[in-house]
Amino acid sequence: MDRILLGHGSGGTMMHKLIKEHFAPKFEMKSLNDSAVVEGINHGKIALTTDSYVVSPIFFPGGNIGELSVYGTVNDLSMVGAMPLYITVGFILEEGFPIDDLKKILSSMAAAAEKAGVKIVAGDTKVVNKGKGDGIFINTSGIGIIEKETDISPSRIRPGDKVIVSGPIGNHGISIIGERNGLTFEPPILSDTAPLNTLVRDMLNATDKIHVMRDPTRGGLATTLKEFATDSGYCIVIEEDLIPVPPGVRGACQLLGLDPLYVANEGILVAISSPDVVDSLIEVMRKHPLGKETKLIGEVQEVPSGMVLLKTSIGGTRIVEMLSGDQLPRIC
Amino acid sequence: MDRILLGHGSGGTMMHKLIKEHFAPKFEMKSLNDSAVVEGINHGKIALTTDSYVVSPIFFPGGNIGELSVYGTVNDLSMVGAMPLYITVGFILEEGFPIDDLKKILSSMAAAAEKAGVKIVAGDTKVVNKGKGDGIFINTSGIGIIEKETDISPSRIRPGDKVIVSGPIGNHGISIIGERNGLTFEPPILSDTAPLNTLVRDMLNATDKIHVMRDPTRGGLATTLKEFATDSGYCIVIEEDLIPVPPGVRGACQLLGLDPLYVANEGILVAISSPDVVDSLIEVMRKHPLGKETKLIGEVQEVPSGMVLLKTSIGGTRIVEMLSGDQLPRIC
Repeated sequence: MDRILLGHGSGGTMMHKLIKEHFAPKFEMKSLNDSAVVEGINHGKIALTTDSYVVSPIFFPGGNIGELSVYGTVNDLSMVGAMPLYITVGFILEEGFPIDDLKKILSSMAAAAEKAGVKIVAGDTKVVNKGKGDGIFINTSGIGIIEKETDISPSRIRPGDKVIVSGPIGNHGISIIGERNGLTFEPPILSDTAPLNTLVRDMLNATDKIHVMRDPTRGGLATTLKEFATDSGYCIVIEEDLIPVPPGVRGACQLLGLDPLYVANEGILVAISSPDVVDSLIEVMRKHPLGKETKLIGEVQEVPSGMVLLKTSIGGTRIVEMLSGDQLPRIC
Repeated sequence: MDRILLGHGSGGTMMHKLIKEHFAPKFEMKSLNDSAVVEGINHGKIALTTDSYVVSPIFFPGGNIGELSVYGTVNDLSMVGAMPLYITVGFILEEGFPIDDLKKILSSMAAAAEKAGVKIVAGDTKVVNKGKGDGIFINTSGIGIIEKETDISPSRIRPGDKVIVSGPIGNHGISIIGERNGLTFEPPILSDTAPLNTLVRDMLNATDKIHVMRDPTRGGLATTLKEFATDSGYCIVIEEDLIPVPPGVRGACQLLGLDPLYVANEGILVAISSPDVVDSLIEVMRKHPLGKETKLIGEVQEVPSGMVLLKTSIGGTRIVEMLSGDQLPRIC
């Protein structure tokens, strides 16, 4: 049997066999049907998160939906300063989905969990009729512990704060759009999907003056910065010449009529810190494999309140708004 | 705007508006995009679970996909003896889904969470193209604390143990199948979807000799009992005349060619306990609104190992196997 059938989601023998043969050996779970019981978490605060992945196509240069779903949840937890511990995973499979593809995705998830140091402890599998899904959707939910009780939120942003990004922008979104449209780039543009938890750990060990962090996924860097500006009530000014846009991403964006500021990323973070620690913070980040290309890209000003301004290469200033509409659907 | 558009999943302004107007007011969350930070859990053990809901139709007699998704996760946690605390929710919406339906579902989820005493603390929304989903899929994941360190698992089952169910079987599955096929029953057959956490709390307060519990959802009572028999290595013998099958469910099953033992339930549990506590346990359960119709239905024997036997009304004995194939797809 090489394709998913409706019976694989029925709760009966077919589902048991699927779980026993393909899921259980990969993950830290006894059964994909049950709650997992794990050791308690004796910490002041914990973080919970959930994300569904509907990326299309499911295999793309640099990754696939499986590792993306693990790293995405690891990163969401990391962004509030939590160390990710456990992940649960829910699959919605479309009738007819190739079991070989499922096996590849499960292997990627297991490898990603190991790389990120998290355990996949519980799961669930549902099957929908052909034409009522799109191959595979994956939900991952996660729990992490907050070891240092630092409040990481836009409310801590202050005028004078510095804005940094941990790496080049746009790679994930362009890798997906390229694959979707049959475009190949030379050199290839690979998704940056990666687990940011150890980078964040190093950052939090270096200073308690990181005021906010976020991984700019859907909506890209522009949307994340606009959220920060709106939530803090201050103005964020970034400089176009300082923003690391790889030449391939820049070229692809020109070709496709996209703005790299709005293209999704899956392996970088943007952080805002006190100005007095920013140099040492950047130094720490550059020592981490995922932070080697960390760049200072701007700063926070008092006014105009809630706005993001881009100082352009040619000396002008542009107002940066949140992504509107559906520039890049199903990017994650 | 009265329908979901692709832009609602883009991460930009449309998604922010959707969350701000419809999701945030209903749930205990600041944003549907972020990790939730909650107070820590200082307990020896915690339970984690996840479930995706793809039930079709999404509205059915006695409930809808929203409350089902909350109660289902509450019940999964309850079945390992955990008190559910927090739930996360991930939506996969199909382009074109009516926003009025979404609002109804969100209201049901909020009411269900309140009824079950859990908080919905984090969420995520994705949108897929028309024809690549089926209206709405919901993933709920949950975390609960295990207050009493009782091992609740099939490994504790012993010969002589008694088997009880907390209420009549088959209502959920038949309500879905009826709705799907345009059948109406008189009196109506309503889904039994309900949160079992307070019933379980009462049960665990009454005795520490409950060896295993489970809510027999997909695959029905037969599949759950077969799992118990296989995992324990003992034989479970149940008596057809003792199993509570409502007349409407029995009639519908005859009409549709279904066996009520395999029909899904969403508001009952099956438990196996020591024989010495079973009478007092049943008494405690019958005092709870969801356990009023609790019945003793069978017992555990040494052999034949791993089998479930049904003593039929006419005096015979039938071997009960796990559900095979796809009798009732997309029942939850």
